[in-house]
Amino acid sequence: MNLVIVGSVALDTIETPTAKVERALGGTATYASIAASYFASPGIVAVVGGDLERRHISLLKRCGVDLEGLQVVPNGKTFHWSGCYEGDMHQAVTRETQLNVFESFRPTIPESYRKAPFLFLGNIQPDLQLDVLDQMKKPRLVLCDTMNYWITSQPERLEKVFRRSHVICVNDAEARMFTGRSSLPKAAQDLLKLGPQRIIIKLGGYGVQLYGRDSFFALPALPLTNVKDPTGAGDTFAGGFIGRLTTAVRLNENAFRQALAVGTVMASFCVQDFSCRRTAKLGPADVKKQLLSLRRAVLLPHYPG
Amino acid sequence: MNLVIVGSVALDTIETPTAKVERALGGTATYASIAASYFASPGIVAVVGGDLERRHISLLKRCGVDLEGLQVVPNGKTFHWSGCYEGDMHQAVTRETQLNVFESFRPTIPESYRKAPFLFLGNIQPDLQLDVLDQMKKPRLVLCDTMNYWITSQPERLEKVFRRSHVICVNDAEARMFTGRSSLPKAAQDLLKLGPQRIIIKLGGYGVQLYGRDSFFALPALPLTNVKDPTGAGDTFAGGFIGRLTTAVRLNENAFRQALAVGTVMASFCVQDFSCRRTAKLGPADVKKQLLSLRRAVLLPHYPG
Repeated sequence: MNLVIVGSVALDTIETPTAKVERALGGTATYASIAASYFASPGIVAVVGGDLERRHISLLKRCGVDLEGLQVVPNGKTFHWSGCYEGDMHQAVTRETQLNVFESFRPTIPESYRKAPFLFLGNIQPDLQLDVLDQMKKPRLVLCDTMNYWITSQPERLEKVFRRSHVICVNDAEARMFTGRSSLPKAAQDLLKLGPQRIIIKLGGYGVQLYGRDSFFALPALPLTNVKDPTGAGDTFAGGFIGRLTTAVRLNENAFRQALAVGTVMASFCVQDFSCRRTAKLGPADVKKQLLSLRRAVLLPHYPG
Repeated sequence: MNLVIVGSVALDTIETPTAKVERALGGTATYASIAASYFASPGIVAVVGGDLERRHISLLKRCGVDLEGLQVVPNGKTFHWSGCYEGDMHQAVTRETQLNVFESFRPTIPESYRKAPFLFLGNIQPDLQLDVLDQMKKPRLVLCDTMNYWITSQPERLEKVFRRSHVICVNDAEARMFTGRSSLPKAAQDLLKLGPQRIIIKLGGYGVQLYGRDSFFALPALPLTNVKDPTGAGDTFAGGFIGRLTTAVRLNENAFRQALAVGTVMASFCVQDFSCRRTAKLGPADVKKQLLSLRRAVLLPHYPG
């Protein structure tokens, strides 16, 4: 176990313009841990109710996800999100959110997790993210995510989380909202000033940007014509990203760029089916092939003089 | 003269959140020809009124732009556009458009232009674009642009232009509007079916995509923190793109990718000041340096196993 992932395990009911799925396995910890499992030994810290089906637990176990940190509330119900997508499925419209056992979630990091070198703080209340940071013993790299709700309601607490993270991973709207900057390069500069080494700004179907103090890197999303459901793409990206980082000898710019490519590739698989159906069944050849496609899509031939 | 550029020469009054400029030199033909002039020998086909100041004509001449195709209506007034930008300056809000002499513009291609191997059909009425195509003698490459107004009002005429072009250059909203597809990869596929070899989809501050029948390439915009005025960025991109193509031995994928990088770089200069102030004063070293920055920004190091 070299990677702790803190976040939700959820049941999602999702409707897209062409299909629908009910009570499918979802949540940040689910998506991120499955994506990370191709490269790392992730363990999750999350909570579920007694209603979570055995097959969901089995799926996570089969992917090699450590579940010691998964709290089960026998008489409780699992977090349930219901939403739909329209048009280009750029943005989900929430129909219903039943927090259930997630409402009183208090992450407890098992003793065996505390020395893990990598930590992904998924989108939960900033105070809980801080609590997790206090429980961990000096992780080598902390990646954190958040959402508009916490940016609006608890910006000061969130800033504390950002100050203690090595990499912040947010989308374009979140970066703009937190900093009050409409320009993304300016927003990234502001976020870097809080202390993190790198800022990742996700642009949905337009790709992803990586800002360092003296560096900038960008990757496009792969041009998919078979997007089925974008739910979990961001968490899958984050899981692939930090999963790949665990294999890096040094956490330098090259390692971050390679990890960004892996995250992009894992996200491209995620959106091709509901839930983790596609990402849970990948072979190393699938990942390698998609990485090659991505490499071809960004190859700028040398300028001849 | 190896590149014909058809489009507007305009006077622009522009207000941004931080500054304002009145009756500055603008228009598609202006922006595109100045950007192209670093690589090609462009000639423009456009119309202006007697009110266009001598210094504007001198600027174009100094940049090496051939003006044989520039019609001057002594008693007429030059096309005048007035607009403003807010927030992240993603989209211009038009305050006033005075078409003036541009309203009855009928492009006449001078005899000396007709055998030029490269043609950029800037955004004008589709019937005029078709008329230009009839006057030209089999150009090696036709690049065409358009706008939402023609997509809505004359989609059939516009389709004829697209069918006779080698490269279509539109922005994301235009691609979606013309094809009725919310997915850009699907929109690009539809456009490719009309016959062009390549589709360029501009994403503003998020970069640009290049779709071929079996290829995909994407470039980010450079992360600028000093954007002053985005007016003309798209036309400057197009001019740099086709200008660079005129130097290619073969019009293959590599040539298109290099040209896309040059277009991106020229556009990055354009937005750093009003009008063509920055692009008209560049040295080869400036362009080379910015190309290196772009190359660094897309360099994906090799995946180690």
